[in-house]
Amino acid sequence: MNKVVIEKKILSENDQIAARLREALDGAGTLALNLISSPGSGKTLLLEKTLAALSRVYKDIRAAVLTGDIQTDNDARRLGRYGYPVRQITTAGACHLDARMIEKHSFGEPLDLLFIENVGNLVCPTSYDLGEDAKIVVLSVTEGEDKPLKYPGIFRKAELMILNKIDLLPYVPFDPQLALDNARQINPHIEVIETSCTTGAGLDLWLHWIASRAEKKKAIHAEEADHAAV
Amino acid sequence: MNKVVIEKKILSENDQIAARLREALDGAGTLALNLISSPGSGKTLLLEKTLAALSRVYKDIRAAVLTGDIQTDNDARRLGRYGYPVRQITTAGACHLDARMIEKHSFGEPLDLLFIENVGNLVCPTSYDLGEDAKIVVLSVTEGEDKPLKYPGIFRKAELMILNKIDLLPYVPFDPQLALDNARQINPHIEVIETSCTTGAGLDLWLHWIASRAEKKKAIHAEEADHAAV
Repeated sequence: MNKVVIEKKILSENDQIAARLREALDGAGTLALNLISSPGSGKTLLLEKTLAALSRVYKDIRAAVLTGDIQTDNDARRLGRYGYPVRQITTAGACHLDARMIEKHSFGEPLDLLFIENVGNLVCPTSYDLGEDAKIVVLSVTEGEDKPLKYPGIFRKAELMILNKIDLLPYVPFDPQLALDNARQINPHIEVIETSCTTGAGLDLWLHWIASRAEKKKAIHAEEADHAAV
Repeated sequence: MNKVVIEKKILSENDQIAARLREALDGAGTLALNLISSPGSGKTLLLEKTLAALSRVYKDIRAAVLTGDIQTDNDARRLGRYGYPVRQITTAGACHLDARMIEKHSFGEPLDLLFIENVGNLVCPTSYDLGEDAKIVVLSVTEGEDKPLKYPGIFRKAELMILNKIDLLPYVPFDPQLALDNARQINPHIEVIETSCTTGAGLDLWLHWIASRAEKKKAIHAEEADHAAV
Protein backbone atom coordinates (compact mmCIF):
# COMPACT_ATOMS: atom_id res chain seq x y z
CA MET A 1 0.00 0.00 0.00
CA ASN A 2 1.31 3.47 -0.75
CA LYS A 3 1.24 6.50 1.52
CA VAL A 4 -1.94 8.03 0.07
CA VAL A 5 -3.88 4.76 0.38
CA ILE A 6 -2.74 4.34 3.99
CA GLU A 7 -3.68 7.93 4.84
CA LYS A 8 -7.14 7.39 3.38
CA LYS A 9 -7.53 4.19 5.40
CA ILE A 10 -6.48 5.91 8.64
CA LEU A 11 -8.86 8.82 7.98
CA SER A 12 -11.73 6.50 7.12
CA GLU A 13 -11.19 4.54 10.37
CA ASN A 14 -11.12 7.87 12.21
CA ASP A 15 -14.37 8.94 10.51
CA GLN A 16 -16.11 5.80 11.72
CA ILE A 17 -15.12 6.43 15.34
CA ALA A 18 -16.00 10.13 14.95
CA ALA A 19 -19.47 9.21 13.69
CA ARG A 20 -19.96 7.01 16.77
CA LEU A 21 -18.74 9.84 19.00
CA ARG A 22 -21.04 12.36 17.31
CA GLU A 23 -24.01 10.05 17.87
CA ALA A 24 -23.14 9.74 21.56
CA LEU A 25 -22.63 13.51 21.95
CA ASP A 26 -25.89 14.25 20.12
CA GLY A 27 -27.67 11.64 22.23
CA ALA A 28 -26.47 13.37 25.38
CA GLY A 29 -27.12 16.89 24.09
CA THR A 30 -23.46 17.79 24.54
CA LEU A 31 -22.05 20.62 22.43
CA ALA A 32 -18.46 19.74 21.45
CA LEU A 33 -16.09 22.47 20.25
CA ASN A 34 -12.72 21.59 18.70
CA LEU A 35 -10.21 24.46 19.11
CA ILE A 36 -7.36 24.47 16.60
CA SER A 37 -4.44 26.92 16.27
CA SER A 38 -0.70 27.37 16.02
CA PRO A 39 1.34 26.77 19.16
CA GLY A 40 1.23 29.86 21.34
CA SER A 41 -1.87 31.55 19.92
CA GLY A 42 -3.40 31.57 23.39
CA LYS A 43 -5.91 28.68 23.35
CA THR A 44 -5.21 27.60 26.93
CA LEU A 45 -5.50 31.09 28.42
CA LEU A 46 -8.67 31.66 26.40
CA LEU A 47 -10.11 28.46 27.88
CA GLU A 48 -9.01 29.51 31.38
CA LYS A 49 -10.85 32.82 31.01
CA THR A 50 -13.82 30.98 29.51
CA LEU A 51 -14.12 28.52 32.39
CA ALA A 52 -13.75 31.31 34.94
CA ALA A 53 -16.52 33.30 33.23
CA LEU A 54 -18.80 30.26 32.78
CA SER A 55 -18.56 29.52 36.49
CA ARG A 56 -19.76 33.07 37.21
CA VAL A 57 -22.26 33.76 34.45
CA TYR A 58 -23.53 30.40 33.22
CA LYS A 59 -23.46 28.27 36.35
CA ASP A 60 -26.00 25.78 34.92
CA ILE A 61 -23.80 24.73 32.00
CA ARG A 62 -22.04 21.47 32.82
CA ALA A 63 -18.72 21.87 31.00
CA ALA A 64 -15.52 19.81 30.68
CA VAL A 65 -12.23 20.04 28.80
CA LEU A 66 -10.04 17.56 26.94
CA THR A 67 -6.67 19.14 26.26
CA GLY A 68 -4.15 17.64 23.87
CA ASP A 69 -0.39 18.04 23.89
CA ILE A 70 2.57 16.12 22.61
CA GLN A 71 4.24 16.28 26.00
CA THR A 72 3.52 17.66 29.51
CA ASP A 73 0.28 18.00 31.46
CA ASN A 74 0.85 21.73 32.02
CA ASP A 75 -2.40 22.70 30.33
CA ALA A 76 -4.56 20.27 32.31
CA ARG A 77 -3.06 21.67 35.51
CA ARG A 78 -3.79 25.23 34.40
CA LEU A 79 -7.34 24.37 33.32
CA GLY A 80 -8.07 22.21 36.36
CA ARG A 81 -8.37 25.21 38.69
CA TYR A 82 -11.86 26.30 37.71
CA GLY A 83 -13.99 23.51 39.13
CA TYR A 84 -14.68 21.71 35.86
CA PRO A 85 -13.47 18.21 34.94
CA VAL A 86 -10.34 18.38 32.75
CA ARG A 87 -8.36 15.56 31.17
CA GLN A 88 -4.99 15.77 29.49
CA ILE A 89 -4.39 13.71 26.36
CA THR A 90 -0.66 13.31 25.79
CA THR A 91 -0.13 12.22 22.21
CA ALA A 92 3.51 11.17 22.71
CA GLY A 93 4.67 12.54 19.38
CA ALA A 94 1.46 12.57 17.33
CA CYS A 95 0.82 15.98 15.78
CA HIS A 96 -2.98 15.95 16.24
CA LEU A 97 -5.82 14.47 18.27
CA ASP A 98 -7.82 11.67 16.68
CA ALA A 99 -11.30 10.35 17.41
CA ARG A 100 -9.98 7.26 19.19
CA MET A 101 -8.16 9.45 21.77
CA ILE A 102 -11.36 11.41 22.42
CA GLU A 103 -13.41 8.23 22.82
CA LYS A 104 -10.84 6.76 25.20
CA HIS A 105 -10.83 9.88 27.39
CA SER A 106 -14.56 10.50 27.41
CA PHE A 107 -16.22 11.61 30.64
CA GLY A 108 -18.67 9.34 32.44
CA GLU A 109 -20.94 12.17 33.57
CA PRO A 110 -23.58 14.09 31.56
CA LEU A 111 -22.23 17.24 29.93
CA ASP A 112 -23.72 20.25 28.15
CA LEU A 113 -20.43 21.46 26.77
CA LEU A 114 -17.14 19.78 25.88
CA PHE A 115 -14.12 21.86 24.88
CA ILE A 116 -11.45 19.98 22.97
CA GLU A 117 -8.15 21.86 22.89
CA ASN A 118 -6.22 20.31 20.03
CA VAL A 119 -2.43 19.99 19.70
CA GLY A 120 -0.87 23.33 18.64
CA ASN A 121 -0.67 22.80 14.89
CA LEU A 122 -2.47 24.67 12.13
CA VAL A 123 -2.23 21.81 9.66
CA CYS A 124 -2.69 18.20 10.77
CA PRO A 125 -5.60 18.49 13.26
CA THR A 126 -7.74 19.84 10.42
CA SER A 127 -8.05 16.40 8.79
CA TYR A 128 -9.28 14.56 11.88
CA ASP A 129 -12.98 14.68 12.66
CA LEU A 130 -13.44 14.34 16.43
CA GLY A 131 -17.23 14.16 16.36
CA GLU A 132 -17.37 17.87 17.25
CA ASP A 133 -20.22 20.25 16.48
CA ALA A 134 -17.83 22.95 15.30
CA LYS A 135 -14.18 23.54 14.64
CA ILE A 136 -12.92 26.90 15.90
CA VAL A 137 -9.66 28.39 14.67
CA VAL A 138 -7.75 30.72 16.97
CA LEU A 139 -5.41 33.17 15.23
CA SER A 140 -3.36 35.64 17.23
CA VAL A 141 -2.52 39.04 15.77
CA THR A 142 1.21 38.42 16.13
CA GLU A 143 1.01 35.66 13.50
CA GLY A 144 0.29 37.80 10.43
CA GLU A 145 -2.78 38.40 8.26
CA ASP A 146 -1.64 35.93 5.59
CA LYS A 147 -2.28 32.78 7.64
CA PRO A 148 -5.78 32.04 6.25
CA LEU A 149 -4.30 31.98 2.73
CA LYS A 150 -1.28 29.90 3.72
CA TYR A 151 -3.23 27.39 5.84
CA PRO A 152 -6.58 27.34 4.04
CA GLY A 153 -7.67 23.90 5.27
CA ILE A 154 -8.59 24.90 8.80
CA PHE A 155 -10.10 28.26 7.80
CA ARG A 156 -12.31 26.42 5.29
CA LYS A 157 -13.59 24.01 7.93
CA ALA A 158 -13.89 26.37 10.91
CA GLU A 159 -17.24 27.97 11.76
CA LEU A 160 -15.63 30.63 13.88
CA MET A 161 -12.29 32.44 13.84
CA ILE A 162 -11.20 33.90 17.15
CA LEU A 163 -8.79 36.74 16.49
CA ASN A 164 -6.86 36.73 19.73
CA LYS A 165 -4.35 39.02 21.50
CA ILE A 166 -5.88 42.18 20.05
CA ASP A 167 -4.30 44.11 22.94
CA LEU A 168 -1.02 43.72 20.99
CA LEU A 169 -2.37 45.48 17.87
CA PRO A 170 -0.59 48.78 18.63
CA TYR A 171 2.77 46.97 18.65
CA VAL A 172 2.56 44.69 15.61
CA PRO A 173 2.02 45.35 11.90
CA PHE A 174 -1.34 43.54 11.65
CA ASP A 175 -4.46 44.70 9.84
CA PRO A 176 -7.54 42.90 11.29
CA GLN A 177 -9.68 43.81 8.26
CA LEU A 178 -7.15 42.20 5.91
CA ALA A 179 -7.04 39.07 8.08
CA LEU A 180 -10.82 38.89 7.95
CA ASP A 181 -10.88 39.49 4.17
CA ASN A 182 -8.35 36.67 3.75
CA ALA A 183 -10.38 34.33 5.97
CA ARG A 184 -13.63 35.16 4.08
CA GLN A 185 -11.84 34.61 0.76
CA ILE A 186 -11.31 31.00 1.93
CA ASN A 187 -14.63 30.65 3.79
CA PRO A 188 -17.30 33.32 3.12
CA HIS A 189 -19.43 32.07 6.04
CA ILE A 190 -16.79 32.12 8.78
CA GLU A 191 -17.81 34.11 11.86
CA VAL A 192 -15.24 36.25 13.67
CA ILE A 193 -14.84 37.34 17.27
CA GLU A 194 -11.93 39.55 18.31
CA THR A 195 -10.62 38.84 21.80
CA SER A 196 -7.93 39.75 24.29
CA CYS A 197 -7.44 37.58 27.35
CA THR A 198 -5.31 40.35 28.88
CA THR A 199 -7.93 43.12 28.72
CA GLY A 200 -10.99 40.84 28.54
CA ALA A 201 -12.16 42.44 25.28
CA GLY A 202 -14.56 40.29 23.29
CA LEU A 203 -14.87 37.57 25.91
CA ASP A 204 -18.55 38.44 26.46
CA LEU A 205 -19.24 37.89 22.74
CA TRP A 206 -17.42 34.56 22.86
CA LEU A 207 -19.34 33.48 25.98
CA HIS A 208 -22.59 34.44 24.31
CA TRP A 209 -21.63 32.47 21.17
CA ILE A 210 -20.94 29.38 23.26
CA ALA A 211 -24.05 29.69 25.43
CA SER A 212 -26.41 30.20 22.51
CA ARG A 213 -24.91 27.22 20.67
CA ALA A 214 -25.18 25.05 23.80
CA GLU A 215 -28.77 26.21 24.30
CA LYS A 216 -29.66 25.34 20.72
CA LYS A 217 -28.12 21.89 21.02
CA LYS A 218 -29.99 21.25 24.25
CA ALA A 219 -33.28 22.32 22.64
CA ILE A 220 -32.78 19.95 19.70
CA HIS A 221 -31.90 17.20 22.15
CA ALA A 222 -35.05 17.83 24.24
CA GLU A 223 -37.21 17.87 21.11
CA GLU A 224 -35.76 14.56 19.96
CA ALA A 225 -36.31 13.06 23.40
CA ASP A 226 -39.95 14.21 23.21
CA HIS A 227 -40.35 12.60 19.79
CA ALA A 228 -38.82 9.39 21.08
CA ALA A 229 -41.23 9.39 24.02
CA VAL A 230 -44.32 9.73 21.76
CA MET B 1 1.14 -2.92 7.05
CA ASN B 2 0.12 -0.81 10.03
CA LYS B 3 0.58 2.93 10.47
CA VAL B 4 3.84 2.72 12.44
CA VAL B 5 5.47 0.39 9.89
CA ILE B 6 4.43 2.69 7.04
CA GLU B 7 5.75 5.76 8.87
CA LYS B 8 9.09 4.02 9.42
CA LYS B 9 9.25 3.08 5.73
CA ILE B 10 8.52 6.67 4.62
CA LEU B 11 11.13 8.05 7.01
CA SER B 12 13.73 5.51 5.91
CA GLU B 13 13.13 6.41 2.24
CA ASN B 14 13.46 10.07 3.23
CA ASP B 15 16.72 9.34 5.07
CA GLN B 16 18.20 7.75 1.96
CA ILE B 17 17.44 10.81 -0.16
CA ALA B 18 18.67 13.10 2.63
CA ALA B 19 21.97 11.22 2.77
CA ARG B 20 22.38 11.71 -0.98
CA LEU B 21 21.54 15.42 -0.58
CA ARG B 22 24.00 15.80 2.29
CA GLU B 23 26.75 14.25 0.19
CA ALA B 24 26.00 16.67 -2.65
CA LEU B 25 25.89 19.69 -0.30
CA ASP B 26 29.14 18.62 1.40
CA GLY B 27 30.73 18.03 -1.99
CA ALA B 28 29.83 21.57 -3.01
CA GLY B 29 30.79 23.12 0.34
CA THR B 30 27.24 24.46 0.77
CA LEU B 31 26.03 25.17 4.32
CA ALA B 32 22.35 24.21 4.54
CA LEU B 33 20.20 25.58 7.39
CA ASN B 34 16.71 24.21 8.03
CA LEU B 35 14.51 26.79 9.82
CA ILE B 36 11.58 25.34 11.73
CA SER B 37 8.91 27.16 13.79
CA SER B 38 5.21 27.67 14.43
CA PRO B 39 3.26 29.63 11.83
CA GLY B 40 3.77 33.35 12.39
CA SER B 41 6.97 33.23 14.47
CA GLY B 42 8.65 35.52 11.93
CA LYS B 43 10.84 33.17 9.85
CA THR B 44 10.18 34.97 6.57
CA LEU B 45 10.87 38.46 7.90
CA LEU B 46 14.01 37.13 9.62
CA LEU B 47 15.18 35.74 6.28
CA GLU B 48 14.34 39.01 4.55
CA LYS B 49 16.47 40.94 7.04
CA THR B 50 19.18 38.29 6.72
CA LEU B 51 19.36 38.50 2.92
CA ALA B 52 19.38 42.30 3.05
CA ALA B 53 22.26 42.24 5.55
CA LEU B 54 24.19 39.54 3.69
CA SER B 55 24.04 41.61 0.51
CA ARG B 56 25.61 44.52 2.41
CA VAL B 57 28.06 42.83 4.77
CA TYR B 58 28.94 39.46 3.27
CA LYS B 59 28.79 40.10 -0.45
CA ASP B 60 30.99 37.08 -1.25
CA ILE B 61 28.58 34.55 0.20
CA ARG B 62 26.53 32.96 -2.57
CA ALA B 63 23.21 32.32 -0.86
CA ALA B 64 19.82 30.95 -1.93
CA VAL B 65 16.48 30.16 -0.29
CA LEU B 66 13.99 27.33 -0.59
CA THR B 67 10.76 28.32 1.13
CA GLY B 68 8.00 25.85 1.91
CA ASP B 69 4.30 26.53 2.31
CA ILE B 70 1.11 24.57 2.00
CA GLN B 71 -0.39 27.20 -0.27
CA THR B 72 0.61 30.55 -1.86
CA ASP B 73 3.95 31.81 -3.15
CA ASN B 74 3.78 34.93 -0.94
CA ASP B 75 7.04 34.11 0.81
CA ALA B 76 9.02 33.54 -2.38
CA ARG B 77 7.80 36.90 -3.63
CA ARG B 78 8.85 38.60 -0.40
CA LEU B 79 12.24 36.88 -0.36
CA GLY B 80 12.88 37.36 -4.07
CA ARG B 81 13.57 41.10 -3.69
CA TYR B 82 17.11 40.83 -2.35
CA GLY B 83 19.02 39.62 -5.39
CA TYR B 84 19.37 35.99 -4.32
CA PRO B 85 17.78 32.98 -6.03
CA VAL B 86 14.60 31.90 -4.22
CA ARG B 87 12.28 28.99 -4.96
CA GLN B 88 8.88 28.32 -3.47
CA ILE B 89 7.95 24.75 -2.62
CA THR B 90 4.17 24.45 -2.35
CA THR B 91 3.39 21.22 -0.52
CA ALA B 92 -0.32 21.20 -1.45
CA GLY B 93 -1.46 19.98 1.94
CA ALA B 94 1.65 18.25 3.30
CA CYS B 95 2.57 19.55 6.75
CA HIS B 96 6.36 19.47 6.26
CA LEU B 97 9.11 19.52 3.66
CA ASP B 98 10.76 16.23 2.78
CA ALA B 99 14.11 15.44 1.20
CA ARG B 100 12.57 14.61 -2.16
CA MET B 101 11.09 18.14 -2.44
CA ILE B 102 14.48 19.66 -1.67
CA GLU B 103 16.22 17.47 -4.23
CA LYS B 104 13.63 18.34 -6.87
CA HIS B 105 14.02 22.08 -6.28
CA SER B 106 17.80 22.15 -6.00
CA PHE B 107 19.69 25.01 -7.61
CA GLY B 108 21.98 24.40 -10.59
CA GLU B 109 24.55 26.98 -9.51
CA PRO B 110 27.30 26.67 -6.84
CA LEU B 111 26.20 27.93 -3.42
CA ASP B 112 27.90 28.68 -0.12
CA LEU B 113 24.69 28.93 1.84
CA LEU B 114 21.21 27.45 1.44
CA PHE B 115 18.37 28.55 3.71
CA ILE B 116 15.46 26.15 3.89
CA GLU B 117 12.36 27.77 5.37
CA ASN B 118 10.17 24.87 6.43
CA VAL B 119 6.35 24.81 6.59
CA GLY B 120 5.11 26.60 9.73
CA ASN B 121 4.68 23.64 12.07
CA LEU B 122 6.55 22.88 15.27
CA VAL B 123 5.93 19.14 15.08
CA CYS B 124 6.07 17.30 11.76
CA PRO B 125 9.09 18.94 10.06
CA THR B 126 11.25 17.71 12.95
CA SER B 127 11.13 14.11 11.73
CA TYR B 128 12.30 14.82 8.16
CA ASP B 129 16.03 15.06 7.55
CA LEU B 130 16.60 17.40 4.59
CA GLY B 131 20.36 16.83 4.37
CA GLU B 132 20.88 20.07 6.30
CA ASP B 133 23.93 20.94 8.41
CA ALA B 134 21.78 22.29 11.21
CA LYS B 135 18.18 22.64 12.23
CA ILE B 136 17.31 26.03 13.71
CA VAL B 137 14.18 26.56 15.75
CA VAL B 138 12.59 30.02 15.80
CA LEU B 139 10.45 30.79 18.85
CA SER B 140 8.75 34.15 19.20
CA VAL B 141 8.19 35.65 22.63
CA THR B 142 4.43 35.81 22.10
CA GLU B 143 4.25 32.00 22.05
CA GLY B 144 5.04 31.33 25.72
CA GLU B 145 8.06 29.94 27.58
CA ASP B 146 6.58 26.44 27.81
CA LYS B 147 7.00 25.56 24.13
CA PRO B 148 10.35 23.71 24.50
CA LEU B 149 8.71 21.38 27.03
CA LYS B 150 5.54 20.88 25.00
CA TYR B 151 7.31 20.37 21.65
CA PRO B 152 10.58 18.75 22.79
CA GLY B 153 11.37 17.04 19.46
CA ILE B 154 12.51 20.12 17.59
CA PHE B 155 14.31 21.65 20.59
CA ARG B 156 16.25 18.40 21.03
CA LYS B 157 17.37 18.38 17.40
CA ALA B 158 18.03 22.09 16.88
CA GLU B 159 21.54 23.48 17.26
CA LEU B 160 20.29 27.02 17.66
CA MET B 161 17.15 28.62 19.07
CA ILE B 162 16.35 32.06 17.74
CA LEU B 163 14.22 33.86 20.28
CA ASN B 164 12.44 36.32 18.02
CA LYS B 165 10.24 39.42 18.43
CA ILE B 166 12.02 40.53 21.62
CA ASP B 167 10.74 44.06 20.94
CA LEU B 168 7.36 42.76 22.19
CA LEU B 169 8.75 41.70 25.59
CA PRO B 170 7.34 44.77 27.39
CA TYR B 171 3.83 43.82 26.27
CA VAL B 172 3.68 40.06 26.87
CA PRO B 173 4.13 37.91 29.98
CA PHE B 174 7.27 36.10 28.77
CA ASP B 175 10.43 35.35 30.74
CA PRO B 176 13.35 34.77 28.32
CA GLN B 177 15.45 33.11 31.04
CA LEU B 178 12.69 30.59 31.72
CA ALA B 179 12.35 29.86 27.99
CA LEU B 180 16.11 29.28 27.83
CA ASP B 181 16.06 27.08 30.94
CA ASN B 182 13.26 25.03 29.40
CA ALA B 183 15.13 24.70 26.11
CA ARG B 184 18.35 23.65 27.91
CA GLN B 185 16.39 21.13 29.98
CA ILE B 186 15.56 19.42 26.66
CA ASN B 187 18.89 20.13 24.96
CA PRO B 188 21.78 21.29 27.19
CA HIS B 189 23.89 22.23 24.13
CA ILE B 190 21.39 24.42 22.30
CA GLU B 191 22.72 27.88 21.43
CA VAL B 192 20.46 30.92 21.72
CA ILE B 193 20.32 34.24 19.89
CA GLU B 194 17.69 36.83 20.79
CA THR B 195 16.46 38.88 17.85
CA SER B 196 13.98 41.52 16.79
CA CYS B 197 13.41 42.14 13.11
CA THR B 198 11.63 45.39 14.01
CA THR B 199 14.50 47.00 15.94
CA GLY B 200 17.31 44.94 14.37
CA ALA B 201 18.50 43.69 17.78
CA GLY B 202 20.58 40.54 17.62
CA LEU B 203 20.74 40.39 13.84
CA ASP B 204 24.50 41.02 13.90
CA LEU B 205 24.99 37.97 16.16
CA TRP B 206 22.84 35.86 13.83
CA LEU B 207 24.76 37.07 10.77
CA HIS B 208 28.03 36.26 12.51
CA TRP B 209 26.76 32.78 13.46
CA ILE B 210 25.85 32.08 9.82
CA ALA B 211 29.05 33.50 8.35
CA SER B 212 31.32 31.60 10.73
CA ARG B 213 29.46 28.34 10.04
CA ALA B 214 29.64 28.93 6.28
CA GLU B 215 33.35 29.76 6.58
CA LYS B 216 34.00 26.56 8.54
CA LYS B 217 32.15 24.46 5.98
CA LYS B 218 34.09 26.07 3.15
CA ALA B 219 37.39 25.36 4.92
CA ILE B 220 36.52 21.68 5.42
CA HIS B 221 35.51 21.49 1.78
CA ALA B 222 38.78 23.08 0.61
CA GLU B 223 40.79 20.73 2.81
CA GLU B 224 38.99 17.70 1.40
CA ALA B 225 39.55 18.96 -2.14
CA ASP B 226 43.30 19.27 -1.35
CA HIS B 227 43.37 15.72 0.01
CA ALA B 228 41.61 14.47 -3.09
CA ALA B 229 44.15 16.24 -5.28
CA VAL B 230 47.18 14.65 -3.53
